[in-house]
This record gives sequence, structure tokens and C-alpha cells, in this order.
Amino acid sequence: MKAPFPFSAIVGQDEMKDALILTAIDPSIGGVLVFGDRGTGKSTAVRALAALLPPIRGVKGCPVNSARVEDVPDWAGLETKEVVEMPTPVVDLPLGVTEDRVTGALDIEAALTRGEKRFEPGLLARANRGYLYIDEVNLLEDHVVDLLLDVAASGENLVEREGLSVRHPARFVLVGSGNPEEGELRPQLLDRFGLSVEVSSPRELGPRIEVLKRRDAYDRDHAAFMLRWQAEDAAIRERILAGRRALTELETAPGTIEDIARLCLALGADGLRGELTLLKAARAYAAWRDDTAVVRTHVRAVAQVALRHRLRRDPLDEAGSGTRVQRIVEDVLA
Amino acid sequence: MKAPFPFSAIVGQDEMKDALILTAIDPSIGGVLVFGDRGTGKSTAVRALAALLPPIRGVKGCPVNSARVEDVPDWAGLETKEVVEMPTPVVDLPLGVTEDRVTGALDIEAALTRGEKRFEPGLLARANRGYLYIDEVNLLEDHVVDLLLDVAASGENLVEREGLSVRHPARFVLVGSGNPEEGELRPQLLDRFGLSVEVSSPRELGPRIEVLKRRDAYDRDHAAFMLRWQAEDAAIRERILAGRRALTELETAPGTIEDIARLCLALGADGLRGELTLLKAARAYAAWRDDTAVVRTHVRAVAQVALRHRLRRDPLDEAGSGTRVQRIVEDVLA
Amino acid sequence: MKAPFPFSAIVGQDEMKDALILTAIDPSIGGVLVFGDRGTGKSTAVRALAALLPPIRGVKGCPVNSARVEDVPDWAGLETKEVVEMPTPVVDLPLGVTEDRVTGALDIEAALTRGEKRFEPGLLARANRGYLYIDEVNLLEDHVVDLLLDVAASGENLVEREGLSVRHPARFVLVGSGNPEEGELRPQLLDRFGLSVEVSSPRELGPRIEVLKRRDAYDRDHAAFMLRWQAEDAAIRERILAGRRALTELETAPGTIEDIARLCLALGADGLRGELTLLKAARAYAAWRDDTAVVRTHVRAVAQVALRHRLRRDPLDEAGSGTRVQRIVEDVLA
Amino acid sequence: MKAPFPFSAIVGQDEMKDALILTAIDPSIGGVLVFGDRGTGKSTAVRALAALLPPIRGVKGCPVNSARVEDVPDWAGLETKEVVEMPTPVVDLPLGVTEDRVTGALDIEAALTRGEKRFEPGLLARANRGYLYIDEVNLLEDHVVDLLLDVAASGENLVEREGLSVRHPARFVLVGSGNPEEGELRPQLLDRFGLSVEVSSPRELGPRIEVLKRRDAYDRDHAAFMLRWQAEDAAIRERILAGRRALTELETAPGTIEDIARLCLALGADGLRGELTLLKAARAYAAWRDDTAVVRTHVRAVAQVALRHRLRRDPLDEAGSGTRVQRIVEDVLA
Amino acid sequence: MKAPFPFSAIVGQDEMKDALILTAIDPSIGGVLVFGDRGTGKSTAVRALAALLPPIRGVKGCPVNSARVEDVPDWAGLETKEVVEMPTPVVDLPLGVTEDRVTGALDIEAALTRGEKRFEPGLLARANRGYLYIDEVNLLEDHVVDLLLDVAASGENLVEREGLSVRHPARFVLVGSGNPEEGELRPQLLDRFGLSVEVSSPRELGPRIEVLKRRDAYDRDHAAFMLRWQAEDAAIRERILAGRRALTELETAPGTIEDIARLCLALGADGLRGELTLLKAARAYAAWRDDTAVVRTHVRAVAQVALRHRLRRDPLDEAGSGTRVQRIVEDVLA
Amino acid sequence: MKAPFPFSAIVGQDEMKDALILTAIDPSIGGVLVFGDRGTGKSTAVRALAALLPPIRGVKGCPVNSARVEDVPDWAGLETKEVVEMPTPVVDLPLGVTEDRVTGALDIEAALTRGEKRFEPGLLARANRGYLYIDEVNLLEDHVVDLLLDVAASGENLVEREGLSVRHPARFVLVGSGNPEEGELRPQLLDRFGLSVEVSSPRELGPRIEVLKRRDAYDRDHAAFMLRWQAEDAAIRERILAGRRALTELETAPGTIEDIARLCLALGADGLRGELTLLKAARAYAAWRDDTAVVRTHVRAVAQVALRHRLRRDPLDEAGSGTRVQRIVEDVLA
Repeated sequence: MKAPFPFSAIVGQDEMKDALILTAIDPSIGGVLVFGDRGTGKSTAVRALAALLPPIRGVKGCPVNSARVEDVPDWAGLETKEVVEMPTPVVDLPLGVTEDRVTGALDIEAALTRGEKRFEPGLLARANRGYLYIDEVNLLEDHVVDLLLDVAASGENLVEREGLSVRHPARFVLVGSGNPEEGELRPQLLDRFGLSVEVSSPRELGPRIEVLKRRDAYDRDHAAFMLRWQAEDAAIRERILAGRRALTELETAPGTIEDIARLCLALGADGLRGELTLLKAARAYAAWRDDTAVVRTHVRAVAQVALRHRLRRDPLDEAGSGTRVQRIVEDVLA
Repeated sequence: MKAPFPFSAIVGQDEMKDALILTAIDPSIGGVLVFGDRGTGKSTAVRALAALLPPIRGVKGCPVNSARVEDVPDWAGLETKEVVEMPTPVVDLPLGVTEDRVTGALDIEAALTRGEKRFEPGLLARANRGYLYIDEVNLLEDHVVDLLLDVAASGENLVEREGLSVRHPARFVLVGSGNPEEGELRPQLLDRFGLSVEVSSPRELGPRIEVLKRRDAYDRDHAAFMLRWQAEDAAIRERILAGRRALTELETAPGTIEDIARLCLALGADGLRGELTLLKAARAYAAWRDDTAVVRTHVRAVAQVALRHRLRRDPLDEAGSGTRVQRIVEDVLA
Repeated sequence: MKAPFPFSAIVGQDEMKDALILTAIDPSIGGVLVFGDRGTGKSTAVRALAALLPPIRGVKGCPVNSARVEDVPDWAGLETKEVVEMPTPVVDLPLGVTEDRVTGALDIEAALTRGEKRFEPGLLARANRGYLYIDEVNLLEDHVVDLLLDVAASGENLVEREGLSVRHPARFVLVGSGNPEEGELRPQLLDRFGLSVEVSSPRELGPRIEVLKRRDAYDRDHAAFMLRWQAEDAAIRERILAGRRALTELETAPGTIEDIARLCLALGADGLRGELTLLKAARAYAAWRDDTAVVRTHVRAVAQVALRHRLRRDPLDEAGSGTRVQRIVEDVLA
Repeated sequence: MKAPFPFSAIVGQDEMKDALILTAIDPSIGGVLVFGDRGTGKSTAVRALAALLPPIRGVKGCPVNSARVEDVPDWAGLETKEVVEMPTPVVDLPLGVTEDRVTGALDIEAALTRGEKRFEPGLLARANRGYLYIDEVNLLEDHVVDLLLDVAASGENLVEREGLSVRHPARFVLVGSGNPEEGELRPQLLDRFGLSVEVSSPRELGPRIEVLKRRDAYDRDHAAFMLRWQAEDAAIRERILAGRRALTELETAPGTIEDIARLCLALGADGLRGELTLLKAARAYAAWRDDTAVVRTHVRAVAQVALRHRLRRDPLDEAGSGTRVQRIVEDVLA
Repeated sequence: MKAPFPFSAIVGQDEMKDALILTAIDPSIGGVLVFGDRGTGKSTAVRALAALLPPIRGVKGCPVNSARVEDVPDWAGLETKEVVEMPTPVVDLPLGVTEDRVTGALDIEAALTRGEKRFEPGLLARANRGYLYIDEVNLLEDHVVDLLLDVAASGENLVEREGLSVRHPARFVLVGSGNPEEGELRPQLLDRFGLSVEVSSPRELGPRIEVLKRRDAYDRDHAAFMLRWQAEDAAIRERILAGRRALTELETAPGTIEDIARLCLALGADGLRGELTLLKAARAYAAWRDDTAVVRTHVRAVAQVALRHRLRRDPLDEAGSGTRVQRIVEDVLA
Repeated sequence: MKAPFPFSAIVGQDEMKDALILTAIDPSIGGVLVFGDRGTGKSTAVRALAALLPPIRGVKGCPVNSARVEDVPDWAGLETKEVVEMPTPVVDLPLGVTEDRVTGALDIEAALTRGEKRFEPGLLARANRGYLYIDEVNLLEDHVVDLLLDVAASGENLVEREGLSVRHPARFVLVGSGNPEEGELRPQLLDRFGLSVEVSSPRELGPRIEVLKRRDAYDRDHAAFMLRWQAEDAAIRERILAGRRALTELETAPGTIEDIARLCLALGADGLRGELTLLKAARAYAAWRDDTAVVRTHVRAVAQVALRHRLRRDPLDEAGSGTRVQRIVEDVLA
């Protein structure tokens, strides 16, 4: 199989690339929604991120990618347990996947041949400690999105079906791409994604030609093209690892929490998820920039991706949600 | 897994916390409906209650948490029976749970391997003597809510399916959270919940900052934060146990039952469930306050949570149900 | 399990109590429909009746409660047959019961382990010679109600499914409770119930306080409360048994059948079910009163419960069906 | 089980009784549709006919009631074949019957225990040479009625399912009762029934009292009542047998076929089914009356039951179909 | 079973009889659609044709009626192969047939008892080299009709299901009858039938009496009636066989193809199916008449049945499709 | 089975034939949508292409037609591996195919007889390195088209169902035919097809007669007709092979990429798929013409088939999409 398009070779689309990087530094920020027209490279970017992410240490063969030998679940039936380095898991939710493959289910082979009731883990297990990617999330039924967000939020998958009762860790970042022309997500679902970004094709000739040239080179002269961008991808990977280390040491400047609370109140955000996400995103952004404290600048930089999808629609204000967030940021954090 | 957020560390939300405490003192009050916007901490509070509740004494391994050895059902197939202390069961109804896991069903493993028709208990069995929590109860189908309320009311689960005919105790408090924006429950279902509360995010800067700070501390400095609130949680637990003991001794002041009947008549409540619940809630409240008799003050204090969801909608009165209850309480019990 | 609320301790609700007693004296009167708002004690009354009913003599272990040893069906596979005294069966149709458990079905255990095609009886078998109770009958699908009424009317259950062809007696009184606010039954179904009654909560303070007090006593001081009402329940049970014996000896006064036919003609009842039911109900009522002949007074007393649900709706007459029946009774049987 | 109500004890309802008798004399007339309000004794009449019908000679134990030993199908697996006298089969199509029990299906027991693919016959087999009764035929789905009429018309049941390919005789008279208030049959289905009759409750006091008295006597003094009507039922049975014998000898008067064709042309009947049915019905009626030739009088007598359900609705003519048939009979066959 | 009504005894209905004969001479003309009101003898005609058709030579027991020993498919598992004479297969698609019986499916018996994955052929196999008859084709779901037409057009059945992948010849003429009052076929389906005919009951007294007499004679004096028409049926059979032989030798007159193309252009037929069908039908008609070349007369004679169902509806032209075809034939081929 | 109609004998329809040839030279251009009325020979052309395509070298018996021995998947269970020449696979998606046969599924035979969980490949495997043809693609459900396009785009099939988790190469050209009168594809699906063409029947007499003559000759004198066109088909096959070889050597003229980007911008195409496809199509076209560099002429020649189906509908512009593309090509690439 051909290696995916390099993350750093993507022309433009900075908002999307930044958001993905923030969740790589602090996965507890939550999922990312990527909105954009068809053909704007949404899938390409997510698959590129997969190749870029730093490896993790985990138990070889463990169905939930446990970090420590003692965390391997009993039902895994793993005989020898060895900790190795493995790529960050990035799991695709293919179209037409059956629900039992998502949550895991009764192992039919074991049931038929040995009469045993064994758990066979699903994609949620495999995505633990990594990413779960859904193309066209708005085409999924609400209850499935709900289920995925529930698991992502609680960090564990609780399976109660076919006489099974299993609970296993399932901490992952949910990345969903969607096309706003094909139906919307309910506000209740939107609110449960951490960040949201918008992408569109470039409208100027220069970047379009650049996109076409890079894509053509990737298709026709694959090996050379990958080599050309290898160093730039490696640099980003290093900064992500550095950011993760910096995160725990980072100070929160006096006033930053108040800034955040005031901003959300001014925006009329209903619940408290926005505030908490904004704080985490600002902190991850500060870590990415290698700053030593989280200050107002960081809050301003990530306010739009953290809050835009949480606004109620205002029928008297024709500006898009993004613009409204930016306007209030100017006012409140002037 | 991380310990849940401490019950006593929840900022505000007194009505919800009080209602949950009353059902902990007298579970026969019935279920609690928690209404509120997204992100107002509904799930957090219920999971916090789970950690706070006093332990119970029960038979180890009994699928219905029987208190006495002689109550363990035959189908449990329990060989040795020992009475131990165990946490109050708090069972989550996960999204997408199949109906057979709720009510229990034929044990497929036994049927396939030994040709036996055995009962495999479900979540209703596991919730016996505890709590059953449903997030977004208004997204469940009516007939399931109906089934859960039926079982909760009768205190037993009667299973007639797949050739099985089993009946086992299932006494639990049903806690359902819901978002009034996403569809309503039928009046017939509302009436069968014991209490209802409303929650919302704080609208002032101070408490919002406090919420954000506590939540951030819980996330980032987990052990220290749990320690900080341990004593306050323990104090509430003690008062619940004391309240339970006081309940049986409690006098009902002459006139209190008349107060209740007059109040419900004035409110135009159709049936008699409201009156009985109000009496029980007032009694539990008196026990919580360690008072020796149930008097008018106690009735006034819990009238709103016990009656609000039982009012018919009055198209000529724009006040919310809660306000109307309070107004009539002022009149009748002046 | 706690004993049900005593029948005689129910405050008011005389119409409902009388109708249930009439069917206990003559089960061929047919089913009873109980209409009323939520919380008016419909379920309580039916469960109370169950505890009150006199025992029957039947073959121990017989799946259809046969009265005589020679009536036990072959498929029961009963080895020793002994006639004993047993409580009148009262079977609950639980919400979510599967159709195979109602009618009976292939015995899966026998089919899987021994390859035998055996019949496993359902709730209709178990209800033979007793009562079948359905809460919220209007929530059932029409074809199920239809099936239940068919069986109740013919007195036998005919099962043609999964290669089985079984016919067994299923004589029972169908009691259905319903809430007129939640959808109506089709006229064709209404007509096939024998009697119908309406219940509502008391609207005066006195009875409401009495209800609340008795219910509270039942909940809190169970044993004493049951003892308090035991004798009154026993007295009713004796009168039912006496009434059953009197039934076969009872004369029908000349003119009573003409009274009934004239009354039904005047009411414009379509078919002849109303007349036959009215005759039987009047006869049972006379037996209950220990009178020696069925006369006009008895007809008048039961006309409303026997006919009310058979009237066509009259758009020009705003009076309820019950009032219209009573008015015409006054005219015709003045 | 109690013997059914005697055919001859039915008060009035002559049209229905006559139509059933005609099909007993010549089953090739086709099915009978019985329309009427609830409670008018439709089911009673059909069940009464069952008890009245003369016995047939057939092979004992044959699943399709074959008349001759050589007609027993191979799949019956019958070892000894003996011709005996047996009652005319009258098969009830119970509500909720599964389609495999109607047409027959794979024998599951044989398939599971011996791995054999055997045919297990259904109700269509059992109804061969007799009657198949469907209560509330208008509640069945069209495709099932279609299937039943197809089989009734062709006289054989062709099963192609689950790898089976079986064809067996299935000649029976389909009797369907229906309530015109609950949805109509499609004209295409109506046309395929041979005869149709309408029944209603008597509107005068005298007959109503008579009905009530007979029904009451039947319920309360069963044995005596059956004895009372035995001779009258036997007389009808004898006349049916005589009519069957007479049928083959009967002359068709010159001009009778022309009468029939002119009548149907005048009525604007689309197809030719009406004419053929009318000829057969007139012939059976002549046989019933023991006349020696089919003449105009016989045609007039049965025109209404044979043609009424085949008329197109005429929006300019408010008279019912029956009246229109009668009017044109007067004109054409004056 | 009674022999079907003789083809030559059908009164009138020449268009239908001719169309069926043409497809008997050249089956590649494609299917025939028979439209008409209920009771016009559509089914009778098709079943009559079945009895009339000449026998074919084929391998005994071959599930696809192969003409040569070497064409018997492997999955048939046929041990001895012998070529014999057999009737032209005429297969009925019974109502309620399951899709697996149409296309063939996994042999369940072989799978269960021997664990083998064998193909069990369906009705499409059995119809190979013959006729497949569907009563009320417009009641079938579109996708089934589509499937049948696809197979009929390609002449082979391709089965991809349950892990099977089988392809076998399935060349047959699809005959469908339909009632225009009960829903129409999509134009795309209509176009794929070769010919279409319309039938109706005679409107004059004479033929109606004749129909009735013949039908009555067929029913009452079966053997004599069959004998009476035997010779006429045999004559038609001989002419069909002669026509088949003549077909390959037949010249196409210069100008005939141009006639056809001009006619179809004038009619505005979209695709080219009409032209090809018209050519084949004209050729078969010439062969039937034993002419030596296909000329304009033949084209004119079959234009209506070959083209009528391919016309787009013309809202400005109230004439039926048949009339429009005939008008343009007059113009173009004057 | 008869050989398909020769590709080169198709009268007219150049756009369709050219598009199919371009994808034969460079399959990465993506799928082809063929739109046209019924009877315009869409299926004929695709089946003709199948016969024309050059053979490929691949491992004998490999379920995914692997080119090299080392690429045969383990689950194929292939014992001896030999590279042979094989026809380019052209797989038909038959109507009514089950989804498990498309994607592959659990091997039921292996599961039942050996208790093994083996993958049984489906049509996507079989189509690898070839063509997948769907007649009437607009009748398929969106999610299936979506699935097929996803697999075609990614070049691999990822199966997650029934406990299986398999990934295999599935690189093929999807050819779909559709009738614009029978429902449209969503824009999101349209955009994912590489090329689109429109076909219609000729409107002049000459070509129509030619079509009819050739078709008639093909039907009646098959062998001679195939021989007549053999050489012309072979010539096209040779040019395709030459074009494939030329493709890798082909220069892209300076300015060609800019031409493409300017053209797409002017057309207002949303994403970048159009640009990349246009570049590839132009390149394939140059290779087909045996030119040495891709220049503006090539872009102009294929602009319409590459872009027409990607335009948004313009309500103010009544010209068809094809005309609009051509107009802007004239402007931009004048």
C-alpha cells in the first residue's frame, strides 16, 4: 500500500492542521469536527496525521493497546506479554460496519466450536490510546454518534449484549469529517466535540496549481515525493512530543480562567463544556509554542476552534458562528 | 478508572442534590427526573451520588443482591452463600443496550452447550436495592420507560419470553436525566416518577470560575482533590444513614395528611400518586433534618420537587409548573 | 412479596368492585374494561380481586388447570395426576411479552436437545378458569386484543404455528384497564367486552384523606392493616360462592327478557351481544343479592355497565354514554 | 367442547343459510362472503353449517383427505391405507396463523433430527374437500386472500419455498365474514368469491326475544336444546345429499343460458365469472328444490347472491348493489 | 388434475392467441404482456398454450432441461444422462414464492447434513427453454420484474448469494398478465417486454352465450369436450413446428428493414428494442403463414403488438396507444 | 454462451467508446458514468469493452488476481502459485446481489463444517485490476454506491463484519450506467466518478438502419459477424497497450497544469478532484494519440467528459452541463 500524503505537504488548511496537532498534544481535549465541501482534502489530512503521530509504548498483541502488562484484560487470553513500541493507533470506521464490530460482541467462532461465551473486541478497543476516524459523520445515525461520543467522553466502553457484560478502556480522539450540505448534527452532539474546523479549496490560482502539482508528483513519483517531505514531518512530530512533556509543567496565569469564564458568559454558551475545552486547548497551544504559562494570547488563538460549534444560531445576526466568536473575543479580551 | 467527582464538590445545584438524598433515605419515594440543558453536570451528579451512598449488607455473588441467604433465587445456581458488605449498586443503562440485557433472558451458553433452559439475569436484577441510571431518558422508547417504571413500581421483574417464566425482586430508584429541548415524556410517564428537579449552569461569573477551577483541579490533580472533599462526603453519608434509622420512628403531626390532601386538591392533581409521594418526601426530609415529627414546614419544603411534574399544562397561565406549585403552596399552607 | 391491598379497603369505586364481583359469580359474562385517569387505583383493584377470589379444585401441575384428571392434555406429559385445591389463577400480561408466550409455542429445549416437536403452553393456558389482566389494554396492538377476545369468547386456544397444531381450553375473564386519554379501542373490540366501568379519584377532601391514610397504613404497618380487613374480604368471598350456587336455580321472571330486548332496541344497539350480556349480568346480580328471580330491578341495576360501551357515538347528544343509557332505562323501564 | 348452535335454530338470516346450502350441494360455485355488523351471528352460522354437513368417504389419516387410496400423496408417508367415513372438514384460519401453516412448509423436526427435507402439510391440505373459514376476511392482507382464492379456484396448492416444490389438491369452499365498516376488499378479490350475502340483526321485538331465548336456552340447558333441533338439522342434511345426486341429472331448459347472458350484459358485469357462477347457483338451487330442469325462476331466485358483489359502484345511483341487481332482474327476466 | 381448456376452444381473443403463437415460433422475440379486466380469461389462455406447445428433446432429469448431454451443469450431480422427448416447460410463478426459489439458492439439506455448499436450482432453471408465467405481474415488486427481464434478456441466470457463485442458462419467454386498473409498470419495464396484447370480454350476446356454453361443457362433460377440440389444437401445433423450421430459411425483402426503421422513427420510439422486436415478430409471422419472404404486409400485421407498449404517453392525443400505432402505420407504410 | 457484440461494430457513440478507452489506458482516472435513455446500447458497449481489453499477467487461482506470487493473501489458502496470462477481469454486479457477496464475508461452509472463521472473498476481490459494471447505478442505494466508490478510490477493501477484519487490494474501474429519467445520484457521488458520457439513439434513418442490420446479422449469423470485426477490435487493443507504455514517458507541457487550474476555477468547481482527473484524462488521451507531450489540445478534448458531471446546477442558465463546459473551454483556452 502507498504511504499516505505527507502532513506537511498539505497546502494551506492551517486551522485544521493546528487543531489536529492540539489533540495530539492533549487527547483529553476531545474530538475534532472537520467541515468542508467535497474534494477539499479532509480525508487526506486525517490520514496524513496518522503517519505523523509519534509511536506509543504498549503490550504487544493486547487488543486494547494497554501501556502496562498488568492492564491487559483477562478476556484477551494473551499468554506472553511484552512491552514494545507501536504506532499510535488510527482506526477507520468503514462505511457499512456492523454495530457489533464497533463495540465488540460475542465471539461466534468460540461459541460455535467450543460453546464458550467469549468477548471479541471491536473497533473501540482497537482505537484505545489513538484516533478513531469517521468520514461523513453526518451520515451516521444519531444514536451511533451518540454512542461514540459517550465512549470517547467516559474513556471506557461498556458492552451489555448477547449475555455479555464487558467494560474496557477506550480513550481515543474522535475525528469526524462532514459536509454541511448533507444534513446537520444535532446541537447536543456538536457540543460534545472538542474542536471544530472549516476547510475549503483555495480560491486563487497559485495555491491551486501548487496543490495539483504536489498531488500529481505524489501519484507519479511517489518515493521521491515522500523523501522530500520527510524532514518536515519529523520536525512536527518532535514538537508534539515536546509539547506533551511541557503540558504537565505549564503554569496557568492568574486571570486566564477568569478570561475564559467571561468570554463564555458573553457568548451565551449554555453549559460548561466550552469553558473546560477552551482551557485545555489554550494550554495545549501554549505547550506547542513552548511557552511557560497560559495567558490571554493563547486563549484568543484557540477560542474560535473551541467555541464556534457551541453557539446557538442567532436569527438576527447573519454573520457565521466563527465571525461572531471572533467579534466577542475582540470585545471581551481586548 | 478515575474516581468520580465528589458529591459535595458540586457547585450549587441544591435542588438536585437534595432530591437524590431524599431517595437515598427512602427509596420508595420513587424515581427522580433531572431536567436541564446540555453541559449542566447532570451525569456528574448521579455518578457522584453513586460514590457517596452507604454500603449495604448482601449475599456475595447473588445476582439480585439479596440481603439474606434464604432469598437467593434458585436459578442463581450459587453454591456457597456468604453475607458481606457491598457498595449500593448503581447500574448504568448504556445506550444501545438490548432489551434482553435489561430484563434478563435465556442463557445462550447453557442452551447451546448443555441444552438447558436457564435464566440469565439482566440489569434489572443487578440494580436491585440500588439505583438505575438512564442518561437522556427522553430518547428511550416509551414502552421501555414504561417497562422500567412498572418494574420500579411493583418492585419485581416478571420475565415471560423464550419459554422462560421468571419473577425476581427488582427494587431500585430510577434516575433519568433529560433535556427538555429534545422531546418530552408523556404525562402518564411523568406522573410515575417520584420527584423532579431542574438544573442549569450558573449565570454569574463567580460560580462559573469556581466550577471551572474545581473541574480543572479534579482533572489535573486528581488524588489531592479527592482527599480535599472526602470528609464532606462522609458527613453526608452519615446523615443519610441516620435519616434512614429515624424514618421508622417519625411521628406524623395531626393535620399534616390533611395539609397534603388540600394542597393536591387545590393543584388539581388527577390521581393520588402525588399525595402519597409528597407524604413520603416530607417524611424523608424530616428524617434528614433529624426532626421528630412531620409538619407543615416539611411539606412546604418538598412540595415543588414532588408535584411540579404532575401538573396539567395550563394554557392561560404562563408561569412554569414550579412557580404555580409554589404559588398554591403559599395560598393553601399560608 | 407483600400481600396486595385488600379489596374491601378500597375507598369508593363501587361500580368497578361490583362489576368484578359479577364476573366472579358468572365468568361467562365476559371481560371487564376499566377506564380511568392515571393514579385512580385501577391496577390496585384488579390485584386486590385476585387475592379475594375463592379457590378452585384442579389437577396439580396441569398446565391448563384442568378440573378433572381425564381433561389433562396429552402434551402436558403429566405422570401422576392428583386433584387439589388451588387459588383462582390470575395471570398478568407483562409489557413486552412475546406472542409465543401468550399463545404457547414450540418447546425450544425439547427441540434442541431431543429433536422433539413439543408444545410449550403459554399465558392463555395458565389463565384457564381464571383471570387474565392487561394493564393499559389500549396500548396493545389491535390484533393481539382481537386474539385475546377471540380466545376468551370461544373458550379455547387454537395454535397453528411452527408446525404445531394444538387446541386447548382457555376460559378466562379478560380484565383490561385503559386510560381514555391515550387512544381508544375500535368499536368492534369494545363490543366484545362484557362490562365496562369508569373510575376516578374522589373530588372531596374526606375520602382523599381516607385513601391516603389507608395507603400509608398499608405501606408502613402492613401486617396490622391486612389483619384489619381480613374479615370483610372473607365475607365478600362467601357471598360470591353463594351466588355461584344460586345462579343455576334462579328463575327468570316473565317479562324480564322482553324488558331487555326493548331496552336494547331503544338504545339502537347493533348486534345481540348486549342483550345476552345484560341478561347474564342481571342474573348474576340477582344471585349476588340472593334474590330468587331475575326481575326488572336487576336489569336496571346493571344496564349501565353492560351497555355503556356498546353505544354508537351520537354527535348531537353531548351527554356521555353512561348518561344516555341511564336516561333510556328511565324511559323504557319506568 | 360444547356442540355448536344448531343450523336450523338460527332465527331468520335466510339468505345466508341458503347460500351456504347451495355451496354444500355444488362446491364449485366458489366461496361465500358474509357481510354484516358485529354481533349478527356470522360466525355462529358458519360453525353451525360445519355440524350439519354430510360426512364424506376418505382415506384415514390422509393429510389431504383423499377419497381413494391411490390418491394419497407420497410425502404423506402413510403406511396402511383404509377408506372410512369422516366428517366434512371445516378448517378455521385462526388469527395470527403463520403463512407456513397455511400453505405447508418444511418439516422442521425431520430436518433437524434426520437432516431430511420433508413437506409438512398446512391448513390448505386439511381443508381439501371441505370448508375453510376466515373470520374478518377484510383484516387479512390482500396477498393472503389472493393466495387463498387462487388455490380455491385452481383446486391445488403449489408450494415453492425453502427448497421444497410440492403440489397437492386443495379443493374447498372459502367462507369469509367481514364487517363493511372496517375496510373493503378490492373489486378484484370480490369478483372471485362465488356468492355474497348480507346479514343484520332483526329490528322487531318478536324475533329479538326469540333469538335471546334460544341463545339463553342453548347456554343454560345445552343437551335438551340440541335434542330439540336435531331432527330439523337432519332433514336439511338429507336434502343436501339428495340435491347433490340430482345435480348431475338436471336438465338446463332452452333459454336459461341466454337469460343468464342477457342479465349479465344488462348489469354491465365485466368478466364472465358472474355468468358461470349464476348458472351453477341456479342449477344447485333447482337441485335443492328437487326440480327437474333449470328454468328462469331459479335464475331469478339466486341472481342477487351471485351477482351483487360484482357490480361496479354507480355514483349516480344511490340504491345498494342488491337493489340494483333486483331491479334489472325485474326488467330483463320480467 | 383436469386437462386445461383447449387453446382452440377459446372464443375470440385472436390478438392474444397470435402473440403467443409468434413467441412459440421464435422465443427470442421476448416476453408477452397480456392486459385485460378481471375475468377475461387471461390465465386460461396461457395455461391452454402450455398444453398446446410441441415437445422438446432434452436430457432427462437435467435441472435446466439441457438439449445435449454435454451441457448438463456439474452442480446437477446427474449420474446417467439420456436424451428424451419432454413437454415444453411452462413454469408458474406462484404468489408468495420466495426469491431463493426463483433464482435458486444454497441447498439447505446438503449444507445441514453434509456440510456441503451445493446449489439448488430455482424456477429460472426449470423454465429454461420454455415459458415462465406470472399472473398479475403488476403486483410484483419492480426489482423482481427487473430481475426476471434481465435474465430473460441475457438468457442466463447469475446467482451471487450465500457464498455461491453460479451461472446457468435460463432462456424462456416471460408471459405476464396484468390488470391496468391495479397500477402500471414503469416505462423502462414495459419496453423490455417483446409484445403486448389487450383482451376484453365480448360485448355481444352471441359470443357470450358461446363462451358460457363451452365453459359449462368443459366443466360438466370434460372428456367429450377435450376430444372435440383435440384435432384443432394438433393443427396449430403442427403449424408452429413448421414455422420454426421455415424461420431460418426466410428471406428478408429489400426495403423491409427500412420500413421498420422509418416506422419506429415516425413513432418517436426512444431506443432500438422496438425495431429489432418488430423485425423478429414480422419474420415469425411470415413463417407462421408459410410465406417465403418478410415483406411490408407482415410488418403491418404485427406492428401493433410489437410497438404499442413502447409509446410515450401523448397528453394531446386522447387515442389509445394501439390506435396511434395503427394510424402511423397507415401513414408510413401506406 | 454467445460472444459479446464487437466493440468496433458499435455504430456512433464515440464519446462513450473514447471514455472507456481512456480508463483502459489509465485506470486511476476513476469510474465512468454512462447516461442515456433505455435501449441505447449502454450495456452492450460495456460488455463489448470486456471482450476487447488486453490480458493481464497474474497468479492463477488467486482470489484478488495478484500480479506477483508474493502478493497472494494468506487467507486465499493457495497451495501452488503460478503466474499466467488471464483476461482483464470484468465483473457484473447482478441485481439483487447480497452485500456479503460484494464485500466478501464469513465462509459459511468452513464455519459450519470445521468451526473455522475464514474469509470468503466477494465481487470486490474478483474485480481487482479490472472493471466492475453496474447496470442502472441510480437504482442502487446511496450507501452501496458510496461503498463502491470508497473502495475504488482507496484501492483497497476493508471488511469489518461477523468478527472478521480483512483488508485486500481492490483496484478497479467502476462503470455505471443510468437512466436520467429514473432518479439522480447525489452531487457528492457524481463528483467521485472520473468521467461521464451521454448516449442516445441515432435520430437519422441511415444509422438506425445500420444498427438494425448489424444487430440482426449478429443474432442470425453470429460466427461470420464476429470474424468480420475481429481485426478492428484487435487494432484498438494494440493501441491501448501502446498507450499504457507511453503514459510513463509522457511530458507535461509547461502551462498545461495552469490551463487546467484556470479552467476549473472559471467553472467554479468546488474541490480539486476535477483538476486531477482532467490532468490524468488529458495525459491518457495524449498517450492514446501517441503524442509526446500533454498540451492544451488534449485538455480541450477531454474537458467535457471529465468535468460535465461536477458542475453545480445553474438555475439561470438553461444550457446543459456539457454545453456550459464547452463554452467556458472556448473562453479560457481560446
